Amino acid sequence: MSEQRERKCLVVVWPHDAHTVDAVFRTLREGWVSLLLVGQRESMPLPADWEEYADRIAFEYATDAVDAARLAVKAVREGRAQAMMKALINTDVLLRAILNKEEGILQKGRVMSHVAVMEIPALGRLLLMSDAAVLPYPTEEQRAAQIGYLAAMCRKFEIAQPRIAMLHCTEFAGEKFPHTLTYAPLIERSKAGEWGNILLDGPLDLRCTLDKEALDIKGINSPLEGKADALIFPDIEGANAFYKTMPLFAGAEIAGVLQGPDCPVVLSSRGDSELTKYYSIAVALA
Amino acid sequence: MSEQRERKCLVVVWPHDAHTVDAVFRTLREGWVSLLLVGQRESMPLPADWEEYADRIAFEYATDAVDAARLAVKAVREGRAQAMMKALINTDVLLRAILNKEEGILQKGRVMSHVAVMEIPALGRLLLMSDAAVLPYPTEEQRAAQIGYLAAMCRKFEIAQPRIAMLHCTEFAGEKFPHTLTYAPLIERSKAGEWGNILLDGPLDLRCTLDKEALDIKGINSPLEGKADALIFPDIEGANAFYKTMPLFAGAEIAGVLQGPDCPVVLSSRGDSELTKYYSIAVALA
Repeated sequence: MSEQRERKCLVVVWPHDAHTVDAVFRTLREGWVSLLLVGQRESMPLPADWEEYADRIAFEYATDAVDAARLAVKAVREGRAQAMMKALINTDVLLRAILNKEEGILQKGRVMSHVAVMEIPALGRLLLMSDAAVLPYPTEEQRAAQIGYLAAMCRKFEIAQPRIAMLHCTEFAGEKFPHTLTYAPLIERSKAGEWGNILLDGPLDLRCTLDKEALDIKGINSPLEGKADALIFPDIEGANAFYKTMPLFAGAEIAGVLQGPDCPVVLSSRGDSELTKYYSIAVALA
Repeated sequence: MSEQRERKCLVVVWPHDAHTVDAVFRTLREGWVSLLLVGQRESMPLPADWEEYADRIAFEYATDAVDAARLAVKAVREGRAQAMMKALINTDVLLRAILNKEEGILQKGRVMSHVAVMEIPALGRLLLMSDAAVLPYPTEEQRAAQIGYLAAMCRKFEIAQPRIAMLHCTEFAGEKFPHTLTYAPLIERSKAGEWGNILLDGPLDLRCTLDKEALDIKGINSPLEGKADALIFPDIEGANAFYKTMPLFAGAEIAGVLQGPDCPVVLSSRGDSELTKYYSIAVALA
């Protein structure tokens, strides 16, 4: 983080679990953020040294988690927070507040989608993916939004020409696999410059997107050259399995953030490590 | 392999690539099999020592790969081979011969499905999965067949009470996710004893099927206790991505075999290592 950059405010919704509070205080101590903690101060598991940072912490009282969600969304609407993090609150409850037609923070016409960033030891570089959590079976327009979010996130990580793969089990689009029918029109739109300087290809299987040798053995010609920066999964089932697999079996560290609302939202879950939550905040603030 | 067991014959369809020939000769040298090689002997990349094993090798001449597929299927029908392996032939071509209504080897009413067996270093035991290659969006009856194949394969690996998980991104079945609607009826059928002594559960996400701690954190009560032996993926997109991911990023060794036809069929692909092909033969012969 550059010292020059303005410090952003992270609003934390119902911070009543230690994992989340530990993660947000880590970013606070490192000087990245100020905090708006929406809940009940006396029962928050604050660290012993919290008062040292009191000038960068604001508290807002909420009667319960539902109320906290409403107040956090309001803070974003009023420009008092630039990123949001879910703590001990059910995802559905938070999403209802975000999506609320009158008081929510998803503008009309915006697509809400989940982006994850992974550090995979066997790959040796970052890999982005979408969508493990929100869009079940993306339409062409929803995929178009996914491509936009992934391209923007890649650029934040200083990837000048993001390589984005639309996955499938096959490299042949067709009626048998309805998801693949949206891929060709999106590649045309990409070539027409809709997302700036990116390389988009698909359908390709996961191996051909990330393993040049497999691509060559199959004799497939792909502009991604087996070096995808970001993967778009055909559906939520596949994306979610991949998202859960990588930390479990491939030693991956993973950060996830919701795109589309007026500010990025961290939706880490109860099972996530403090490190995952910490990385997710970093991505939300990037 | 027990010395007592009768040696099976593996029919190899158009063995004109070195990877496949090397793998089948490895099993031959180890005494597991006899071979029926269907193709053109003079252009097969046979190893230098092949004549040492001539008494366990039969050749059958085929004019081309299509002809080889037809002849290999015929050998199985006539009881001359108990397992089949695809070599330098397109999967679709081989499947057409297997599925041929008059001369094929898929009996009416049988479901054809792919089963893979993985050795995952971070898991420390075998994990079976279905279906990364054949059934796109399984119906209830197709899933029932998958369960049967996985249970049988688990038992071959001496798992007395196979734990089989039906995956999804959520633990809540519902209309929003059509795949999940088949899960509850299948669990009922399992409880009624349809597949003998197995434990079947779902929908569960991948983490909750393989990580007891994640299961506990989520507060979910599952008879699998986070120790699934076999995973049934909701659809081919997810299964295929997982199947491709594990060797690439998790150091997994993987073997795959087609179930349903009159004999198991190894459908390894051009990009597979010799070791993968070798393991797949072992599974087909198990």
